[in-house]
Amino acid sequence: MAGNTFGQVFKVTTWGESHGPALGAVIDGCPPRLPLTAADIEAELARRRPGVQAHASPRREPDQVEILSGVFEGFTTGTPISLIIFNRDVRSQDYEALREVFRPGHGDFTFQAKYGIRDHRGGGRASARETVARVAAGAVAQKVLDQEKIQVLAYTLELGGVKARLQDITKIWDNPFFCPDPEAVPAMTARVQEVKALGNSLGGVVEVRVQGCPAGLGEPVFDKLDAALAQAVMSVGAVKGVEIGAGFAAARMLGSEHNDPLTPGGFASNHAGGILAGISNGDEIVLRAAVKPIPSIGIEQQTIDLTGQPRVITVKGRHDISAIPRIVPVIQAMVRLTLTDFLLRQRAIA
Amino acid sequence: MAGNTFGQVFKVTTWGESHGPALGAVIDGCPPRLPLTAADIEAELARRRPGVQAHASPRREPDQVEILSGVFEGFTTGTPISLIIFNRDVRSQDYEALREVFRPGHGDFTFQAKYGIRDHRGGGRASARETVARVAAGAVAQKVLDQEKIQVLAYTLELGGVKARLQDITKIWDNPFFCPDPEAVPAMTARVQEVKALGNSLGGVVEVRVQGCPAGLGEPVFDKLDAALAQAVMSVGAVKGVEIGAGFAAARMLGSEHNDPLTPGGFASNHAGGILAGISNGDEIVLRAAVKPIPSIGIEQQTIDLTGQPRVITVKGRHDISAIPRIVPVIQAMVRLTLTDFLLRQRAIA
Amino acid sequence: MAGNTFGQVFKVTTWGESHGPALGAVIDGCPPRLPLTAADIEAELARRRPGVQAHASPRREPDQVEILSGVFEGFTTGTPISLIIFNRDVRSQDYEALREVFRPGHGDFTFQAKYGIRDHRGGGRASARETVARVAAGAVAQKVLDQEKIQVLAYTLELGGVKARLQDITKIWDNPFFCPDPEAVPAMTARVQEVKALGNSLGGVVEVRVQGCPAGLGEPVFDKLDAALAQAVMSVGAVKGVEIGAGFAAARMLGSEHNDPLTPGGFASNHAGGILAGISNGDEIVLRAAVKPIPSIGIEQQTIDLTGQPRVITVKGRHDISAIPRIVPVIQAMVRLTLTDFLLRQRAIA
Amino acid sequence: MAGNTFGQVFKVTTWGESHGPALGAVIDGCPPRLPLTAADIEAELARRRPGVQAHASPRREPDQVEILSGVFEGFTTGTPISLIIFNRDVRSQDYEALREVFRPGHGDFTFQAKYGIRDHRGGGRASARETVARVAAGAVAQKVLDQEKIQVLAYTLELGGVKARLQDITKIWDNPFFCPDPEAVPAMTARVQEVKALGNSLGGVVEVRVQGCPAGLGEPVFDKLDAALAQAVMSVGAVKGVEIGAGFAAARMLGSEHNDPLTPGGFASNHAGGILAGISNGDEIVLRAAVKPIPSIGIEQQTIDLTGQPRVITVKGRHDISAIPRIVPVIQAMVRLTLTDFLLRQRAIA
Repeated sequence: MAGNTFGQVFKVTTWGESHGPALGAVIDGCPPRLPLTAADIEAELARRRPGVQAHASPRREPDQVEILSGVFEGFTTGTPISLIIFNRDVRSQDYEALREVFRPGHGDFTFQAKYGIRDHRGGGRASARETVARVAAGAVAQKVLDQEKIQVLAYTLELGGVKARLQDITKIWDNPFFCPDPEAVPAMTARVQEVKALGNSLGGVVEVRVQGCPAGLGEPVFDKLDAALAQAVMSVGAVKGVEIGAGFAAARMLGSEHNDPLTPGGFASNHAGGILAGISNGDEIVLRAAVKPIPSIGIEQQTIDLTGQPRVITVKGRHDISAIPRIVPVIQAMVRLTLTDFLLRQRAIA
Repeated sequence: MAGNTFGQVFKVTTWGESHGPALGAVIDGCPPRLPLTAADIEAELARRRPGVQAHASPRREPDQVEILSGVFEGFTTGTPISLIIFNRDVRSQDYEALREVFRPGHGDFTFQAKYGIRDHRGGGRASARETVARVAAGAVAQKVLDQEKIQVLAYTLELGGVKARLQDITKIWDNPFFCPDPEAVPAMTARVQEVKALGNSLGGVVEVRVQGCPAGLGEPVFDKLDAALAQAVMSVGAVKGVEIGAGFAAARMLGSEHNDPLTPGGFASNHAGGILAGISNGDEIVLRAAVKPIPSIGIEQQTIDLTGQPRVITVKGRHDISAIPRIVPVIQAMVRLTLTDFLLRQRAIA
Repeated sequence: MAGNTFGQVFKVTTWGESHGPALGAVIDGCPPRLPLTAADIEAELARRRPGVQAHASPRREPDQVEILSGVFEGFTTGTPISLIIFNRDVRSQDYEALREVFRPGHGDFTFQAKYGIRDHRGGGRASARETVARVAAGAVAQKVLDQEKIQVLAYTLELGGVKARLQDITKIWDNPFFCPDPEAVPAMTARVQEVKALGNSLGGVVEVRVQGCPAGLGEPVFDKLDAALAQAVMSVGAVKGVEIGAGFAAARMLGSEHNDPLTPGGFASNHAGGILAGISNGDEIVLRAAVKPIPSIGIEQQTIDLTGQPRVITVKGRHDISAIPRIVPVIQAMVRLTLTDFLLRQRAIA
Repeated sequence: MAGNTFGQVFKVTTWGESHGPALGAVIDGCPPRLPLTAADIEAELARRRPGVQAHASPRREPDQVEILSGVFEGFTTGTPISLIIFNRDVRSQDYEALREVFRPGHGDFTFQAKYGIRDHRGGGRASARETVARVAAGAVAQKVLDQEKIQVLAYTLELGGVKARLQDITKIWDNPFFCPDPEAVPAMTARVQEVKALGNSLGGVVEVRVQGCPAGLGEPVFDKLDAALAQAVMSVGAVKGVEIGAGFAAARMLGSEHNDPLTPGGFASNHAGGILAGISNGDEIVLRAAVKPIPSIGIEQQTIDLTGQPRVITVKGRHDISAIPRIVPVIQAMVRLTLTDFLLRQRAIA
């Protein structure tokens, strides 16, 4: 039973392979009468485009989106919104060598184990290219959140061990690392250059903050808002951990330290990260995701082929040094999709 | 749109409040012809029972389960399995003082915000008592996993800052902390006594290991196995963070360090935690959950009441000092439920 | 992948076997703050009780319901509502002879084929007894419909070939056939007596009318309101056909006859049965269900046993002569559940 | 909560408007390693193409399909299969007059009531054009059924009152009415010509037979196979009634007449239509659908406009005289989709 649909009321189904003709998303359950244009979506797609940053993959995709249905004269109609993004800059021959070899850290081995067949070109469905459809759908979701003045902001908190402070959250799109700390940018740049020269790759941490979320979103007991956000964010390829509010630090706190006192003016602290018992409490939602280093590296690695024989490979092709910063708008999109779905879920019983 | 059902093929719906007459689970989608008795389930329930450990809540529940349907002459029939656990040791009058006050760190405030009404007695649906139904369902799930020889083991990795080493995973049920390191037990005991004397509470870290899981479970792209596990575990009340394999440490590793080389004999390391591209790779699955300190403490706290007026409260009643160790079998149950569901999901297309 | 849950927002999961200890329903997604008591539900259960009518099965069930969760101080809380009805008048030994024989027209053969095991006592899960949980859940659904002043009325249109005219829809509960035509009652009684004397059984037609349904319910393209109603009603054991509005008669009409003209005061006719393009049009919803004769008859029938050998059986035990009238409140309940679900589904996007 | 997805394991999501740039379907959950080409699908699309029959709409669509994902080197990969059919022969200006008027018998009024906005061109999402995506998806489903040698055959049983006998089921695609009775064709032709001359339209009855379906498909109690088929078929625009096996005739039969005796060689009759207690019994599945006359007629009709004012309209544009025969492959496709889904659902627990 496949898993390419996200959400229960605002349902997004994505499709497409890295080196197929196109990728896309079908959004079923978008409320009617929202203004929506391709330009709205493309503005978001631009942020996850490879080639924007110096250290990123040189593959260049215009990432133009076409809205094929569900919008009439500039407004959503309540019928399914079909979005398509054609692949234009595909060089599948680069991948011919990988048809029979499993790259370490990639899904090559597990897709083969699961399906008994795989499209090896550029990682197929397991490629980061898949996330373009998530970002496109997230841009539509934001139209719903706009109505409620809910803002979702994601940024780089840490890259290759270089930590950022939360200096200026409004400027994150102004630097190549989507980093809220302009002073950390030179250190990040240096770290990237150093590792790039080695043919190696880097991980990091992305943080998300949601402002304006009303209290009451989240569905006890299994679809708690934090549980759903954890699934949403962990479903992004390179993410290996998710924490809400104090997160893992909460494991070492006392109850008296961790509890957020309630006052007539709101919560006096926010260790909860804006979610109590799985329901938003009206405070800022805060979560962090651990991003692993991307597995495609230019260094020799041990692996096996389809027949189980040992092989040594060096992954060539056009690759990023880190999933950061391109993963930042993807994680942001997943949080948008989650909140939109829970907002509509709450409307059903309110 | 409510969220009391977990799973898509092996579907578990739980119900019940802390101080209602009973709690229960309905399992729809359990394969037929599996042996199942109430005793199988009660053995698991015994592990999450309050009052077993010296530091735990003195509320004592026999936690007997009745199987009301779906089992005929000792075997599952494929029809829904209804499990019921009656509440026997309930003292609701203890909670009357909390009818109009929101306890910090609890769901009191958010349940009120969401539904405009709440059963305040013992936390109602937001009580840890809710998890008894998860553990019962998890015991049934294990019957499916048994057929495939899949073992799920959860234990305490850290409690109140005291860390355990992975000394002897077979002995975890032999000590009161479900801890795999007998040498850490005295320090944990001391820490609990110290904090109990202060009327305060503690958090910790639980680790889960799954052995025998075949490669191929997990559904790209949104229902990745790690994403589903993250939701499952984060849906347990006190959990604030989940990580798979190297987890947050992966954010500081190089690609060459993090990638697990493939060899003809299997993976040479396991930073992936047994999951690649959201699909199990046949290696041991490893995840960790951060558990916050329980919010009910005997220390004065600032809060507000239903009318928004400031109040000071000291939470009385029978409370644990930490969600650990009672949360250990609960997290184990959630992993069992997740794996069972994905095992059956995979059968549908295999 | 099992199918014991009905609805997507107002989700009802039923469980229980004819001769198990109890049957029940868990309703997840009921809006909070609705008044609800066991007496509200029992009033509906009384209408499907065997033994009420002269010709019905002499098995007598008090059919008391207990509300185990989701209601606090007389109002729904938004958490799952667990309803349980204990079986009290069970004589399983009556069925021992059927352990290894498949009754014609029953699910004995197909349950065995599907699951490889079955609870043969009283039909197990395939018994009409299963519908008690539907009626109980339907009574809760009606509480939601009450808020919108939506009324669902089912009645007997035809029994054993005796047709009723729509004389007085308000008196249907006053006669033993739930028939809107007092003048047809004597003929129905005579027909039942005649067939009872032969050890045979009868079918009939049930009609449902919904008044007060607002325009706009129904979800194109697959979850059209008429499609969902068809599923709902056809899921009741003995139903072999469902038609909306003009139904099968529409197949022989001209477009000019069938189209309902729109006027400023509403539709000038109602061949559509209140549903256009799968969405309610604000007019009365009208549907009919064909009910087959119940398969348990006192006449010798040819069949086979578990080993495939031919057998001759005469079904003994306590059986009705017709599923009518007890099926009337069951069909009514299914329509209530469907409308409630679609009402809440519509709220999510409105 | 929208309803553009059909199926639970073999999940089909369709999208697209009559006069938008394209329509399509995304199939999530198709088993891997099935052979699939665009030509396989186009062969089915040809059967529902307008303009094939003399009496059908003169709109001519090449109905070429492109497979955008999920197929690699001629075989399905287990990832979502995205199918797209571009609209080529669209004359939206024909519909400008209908922007503010509701056509009787159409979804114009109800779409407006539901969403507060609608794409009026050619019926938008409510157009019969929508069904092209169903037929395309049904062709993929048949690939799964082929593995089990399950055949689904739909045909015209009645058109405008002219009844067909079941003469030769293998020749139905050889005549313009998809009719199994060559001798009925001249009468059907005459009836169509007669009604066409009047600017009026006709309904009819479609029958479906499934051969080779194994016993055991169908999910008690709500997702019975007959219930699911009823929903599937009733979800097709013009269908107003569905019956299984003896259907409405069963309402007038005695139990001794209706029950199908079991013999060592199989069932001695098939009043059940191949389904007992909602589960296939291994016999031929038989169902019938009542098809209403298409509402677009060239005769003056009373209606209202967006402001509620009375209007008189004559529907112009390119319209069929009857939904038959183009609806025949659509109904066939819905049965294919249903059976495929239940086949895979059964695998999950088998």
